[in-house]
Parts: sequence; structure tokens; C-alpha cells
Amino acid sequence: MTALAALTNHQIRLKARPNGLPTRDGWDFTTEPVAEPADGGVLVKTLAISLDPAMRGWMNEGKSYIAPVAIGEVMRAGGIGMVIASKNPGFTVGDVVSCTPGVQEYCLIAVDQIKRNGLFRIDPRLGTPNQWLNVLGMPGMTGYFGLMDVGQPKPGETVVVSGAAGAVGQTVGQLAKIKGCRVVGIAGGPAKCEWVVKELGFDACVDYKAGNVKADLKDACPKGVDIYFDNVGGEILDTVLTRITRGARIIICGAISQYNNTTPVKGPANYLSLLVNRARMEGIVVFDYTERFPVAVAELAGHLQSGRMKSKEDVVVGMATFPETLLKLFNGENFGKLVLQFA
Amino acid sequence: MTALAALTNHQIRLKARPNGLPTRDGWDFTTEPVAEPADGGVLVKTLAISLDPAMRGWMNEGKSYIAPVAIGEVMRAGGIGMVIASKNPGFTVGDVVSCTPGVQEYCLIAVDQIKRNGLFRIDPRLGTPNQWLNVLGMPGMTGYFGLMDVGQPKPGETVVVSGAAGAVGQTVGQLAKIKGCRVVGIAGGPAKCEWVVKELGFDACVDYKAGNVKADLKDACPKGVDIYFDNVGGEILDTVLTRITRGARIIICGAISQYNNTTPVKGPANYLSLLVNRARMEGIVVFDYTERFPVAVAELAGHLQSGRMKSKEDVVVGMATFPETLLKLFNGENFGKLVLQFA
Repeated sequence: MTALAALTNHQIRLKARPNGLPTRDGWDFTTEPVAEPADGGVLVKTLAISLDPAMRGWMNEGKSYIAPVAIGEVMRAGGIGMVIASKNPGFTVGDVVSCTPGVQEYCLIAVDQIKRNGLFRIDPRLGTPNQWLNVLGMPGMTGYFGLMDVGQPKPGETVVVSGAAGAVGQTVGQLAKIKGCRVVGIAGGPAKCEWVVKELGFDACVDYKAGNVKADLKDACPKGVDIYFDNVGGEILDTVLTRITRGARIIICGAISQYNNTTPVKGPANYLSLLVNRARMEGIVVFDYTERFPVAVAELAGHLQSGRMKSKEDVVVGMATFPETLLKLFNGENFGKLVLQFA
Repeated sequence: MTALAALTNHQIRLKARPNGLPTRDGWDFTTEPVAEPADGGVLVKTLAISLDPAMRGWMNEGKSYIAPVAIGEVMRAGGIGMVIASKNPGFTVGDVVSCTPGVQEYCLIAVDQIKRNGLFRIDPRLGTPNQWLNVLGMPGMTGYFGLMDVGQPKPGETVVVSGAAGAVGQTVGQLAKIKGCRVVGIAGGPAKCEWVVKELGFDACVDYKAGNVKADLKDACPKGVDIYFDNVGGEILDTVLTRITRGARIIICGAISQYNNTTPVKGPANYLSLLVNRARMEGIVVFDYTERFPVAVAELAGHLQSGRMKSKEDVVVGMATFPETLLKLFNGENFGKLVLQFA
């Protein structure tokens, strides 16, 4: 392990909390030597990290479902890595693992993090490393438990999902289809919409950039919307609220349209549709379901292997591109799960 | 029954849909002769009607949980009346009944309405006629099923209810207290707040007119808000959203602050608190629970009789005052369930 001292760890740290879209000068590029793991810990070399809309929330001050990233701290990120030094009997050099390395090349995972399920070996037979960041990773788990536990889909119901070509959206839509639902996506631009329908098998996809969401949604959902899985918030949430059925379930997973606001969040003006329709709007946080991840992974991996489900990742190479690559999410430029590959 | 022809029925009809607060010139005062009931029907003389915030919604055009009142139609209103002519074997002249007479002195109830539970004899042993418009009537049923079925209170939880001195609010708060919850009201002005605490036994009441809702709510709910029963919407809903606990339930019963808007409804800008807290916001419409009304009436009447629950009605006399009396609701001037007594 003496070779570790020769390595340099390149890192990206949060320098200042953004007002609106995060800009390059809000990040610090730092280096530090690579240290050996303490007893019970491991050292992981990052292979790829997941870029998620939720990251924008972590950059804000204040209480949320998870502590904010502190100023000066390495930016938080989930990812896939390889164990290159281990003082934990459960892990061996060469193990490919899922963890939260952050935006840095090397990451020490301490024993208490390992005990809190903060590190696990991925099974390459179930999926590629990129799939472990996508359908088999946090986005897939979010989609699975949001749809199944909060949404509770029944065959024949109409399920609408926004951000349909994104990581969570593709899982939700394909899974709902497998469960016997009519599935309608909402995505930006004809290429994504066509892919969602032709490749993923959605019944329809509304292109919100075409500017006719209300009429297009009505056409695509002639019997109304029984379940809406919302990743975007804003005007789209408000429009869907006008189309929900009695007893509808709205899963609040995110609100990417609002994350970079410099003005207050736009609340759903049509929320009284919940009253009229005896409908329910409920939030999901994936960390609540950690214990049941293996069940979801097994089911989703089975769908991937049988070909009933596909996954698409949008892979960008090079850690240094992080500041610009992250913005692809907020500009709707990613096509599939956005992955930042380090090597 | 020949005497009926000598009677004149005074009525108030919707003349024009209001923009903002309903004004006197939006109503038509009409008269027509009183007719005999058809086979299977009854003729009811109205004793008192219930004035409810929901009436404002019925005056708007467009789809809701119930059809709008048509222009030229007698304004819809629930009420208590006396049967003065009957061609239905189930009802006898002199029966005191609950029905939907509308804002008029006499009302024909046809056989098909009776079959749809649109008329039932009230039991004077369980409560006064005014109580049958309050805790034992629609507001009480709304509060009961909203709290119990949607809110699902557990002992020790903190329940907040807005419009606490109103008809629904007084039922919700007192019932939640009986179920072992900490109960905090929100009401306008010191007199209502004092009454809610001293007479109804709420643990605290926030005076929203004092202008310090956020801090006062925090003081009153040191452990956060587990259940919020919302009758008002607007800024108060948004403020409560900042104080909810993980797994909180928000019952959307109404939004009186928004009903007379001439601008769009203010959506809850803090709705992402549902995500952070894995909380749920759900609408209630009382008509869904009709079959279970007897169960709720029995329980609530028991609480009234044992003295564990009180009811307060704000009684105004004279049908002709309807246009102005209705406005008391929207100006927050009613103190207790607003009842318009005819005789």
C-alpha cells in the first residue's frame, strides 16, 4: 500500500452557494494526497459518478431531507468505484462498489459508513456499472418505490411521468407499463419523445417544448390521469392537476423546473383539484426504502435481462467537466441518465 | 292541502356569476306559488339554512365535485325544514327533516331525491335543529371523516386546524382532542382564539390577524405539525407547510382565502415540504361518506350529550338578509357555524 502516497486526489469542492444556476466560479478545484484507510475502512478509486437534479438542493443552505453540502466540502455525489486498499474484511482490492465518493478521484470510506450500508459490492451479472447508477441505482430505486409504494398502480390505470427520458422517468414509465398501465411521458423535444415511445414502449409522450401541453396531455390521456409521477414541478404540475381523476395519486419526487429559481418556488395554483378529485399528493425520499433495495434491484435486473426494460445513460468523460456537465440536467440537455465517467 | 295554493314562496336565485365577492345585485328575489308534492314527494317549509364557504364555489362555472348552480336557479343550500305536505309514506306532516331546500321558504322534494338520501328526519333527542346543521350536519361530517379517515390521528400527535372557530374547525379540534392529540387552532381575532381555547379546550390558538403566524405557530407546536386540517389555503397553508413533521397529513377541505380571488389561486409555494417530509396532502369531499353518516352522528351526538364536545352557532334571522349574511363567512365575521334562520 506504500504506493498510495504517490497518488494525488483531484477534488471539486463547493466554494459558494449559487444564486440560480451553479456557475464554474462557484467551485474550487483542489488536490490533496491520498491517505490510507483507517481500521475497518476502505479506499475507493472513483470510476463514475451520478449527476442528479437533487444535487442542486444539496447546494442550498437550510433544512432538507439531507444536510446541505458545507462550503469548502467536496461536492456530494453517488458513484461507482473500485476498492484499491482495504482494512475491512468484507472488501477486497479490486471489488467494484457503489458508494457516495463525492466529486473526487479517491475516497476514504470509514467503517461507520460501511455499517450504515454506505458501501456495497455491485453484482456485474445484474447490470453494468452505468446501470448500477441508473435503473439499479438511486434513480431506479426512487422510481420503483415512488411508483409502487406511493402510487400503487393498478392495471388499466393511466400513469403520467415527467422527465420521462431521465433516469427516474425511464424506470417509472417502463415499470408502470409492465404493471399493465397506460403510460404517458412528458419530455423535451421530439427526439426524446420518439425514443420514449419507440424504444421504451410508452403509449405516448408529450413534448413540453412544443408549447401545447394541456391539449396534448388531454389527447394522450383520454380517461384522465390516475397517477402522476412528478420530477419537474412548475407549470407542468399545474397542467396535470387539471386532468387528474377521482382518487388520483401524485408522487412528488422533484421539481427540477424550480431548483434554480431566483424567485420563490411556483406553488401549484390548481392544488384544489386535489379536493375536487379526492386526490392525494405525496412526497418520496428514496433513503426511506434502503432495506428493501435488494427486492427492487432483483425485480428491475430481471426486467433488464429479459429485455422488458431498457436503460439509457448519457455518459460524459472527465471529472473536470463537472461544472458544465451538471448544467445539462437543468437545461434538459441530457438524454438518459447523466453519468460522469472519470477514467 | 287546499291551503297550499294560498301560500307564496319567496326565493333567492343566482342572477349573475360573481367576480370576487358576491354582491347584492348578483341575486334575484323572486316569488312563486307553492305547489303540491307529486306522488312520492313531500313539501318542506324551510326553518333554517346552513351558510357555507363551499357555496361560493357552487356559484362558479365549471366542473367541480358538484354541478354549479345555474343562472336563474334558486341558490343551493342545505337546511332544516318541516314537512307540511306529504305524498310519501315515510314522511308525515310535522316531521322535522334535513334536506337541501335552497334559499327559499318552501321546497318540493321529489321521490328520486328521497331515494338518494336527500331527505331524512332528524332526531331531536340527538341535537337541536341548529346542531343538525353544525356538528351533526355537513360540517360535522366533513370534519369527522376528514380527520378520522384522511388524517388518521394518533394519540400524542399535534393537530392544527384553520378556521378553528368555524363549523368544521370546531368539530375537528374537539374530536382530535378527544382522540388524544395536542390541538392548535388558527382563527381571526382574540375573541375567537380565547373561545377556542377556553370553551372548546384546544391547547392553543394562533390569531392570524395578529400578523405573526409563523412564530406563533412554532411556539404552539414545539414538536411540529403532524396533521393539518386546512379550511383556508393561501398564506396560512404555506406557513404550516414549513412546520410539518415527517409523514404529516394535510387535509384539504377548503380554501376560503382564495374563493373570492379575482386573480389566480395562490398555490402553496412550500409544497416541496411534502417531499422533504414524505408528507401527504389529500382532498376530502363529504358526500363520499354518506353511508357512514349515521356512525359519525352517533359518536358526535354522544360527545355533545356527555359534554365532551360543544357546538356554537352564529344565528342570523331573516331570509332577505342572505346576500349580506353570506359575506360574513368571507370576512371572517361569523363566530361559530353560520345559520340563517327563516322564521
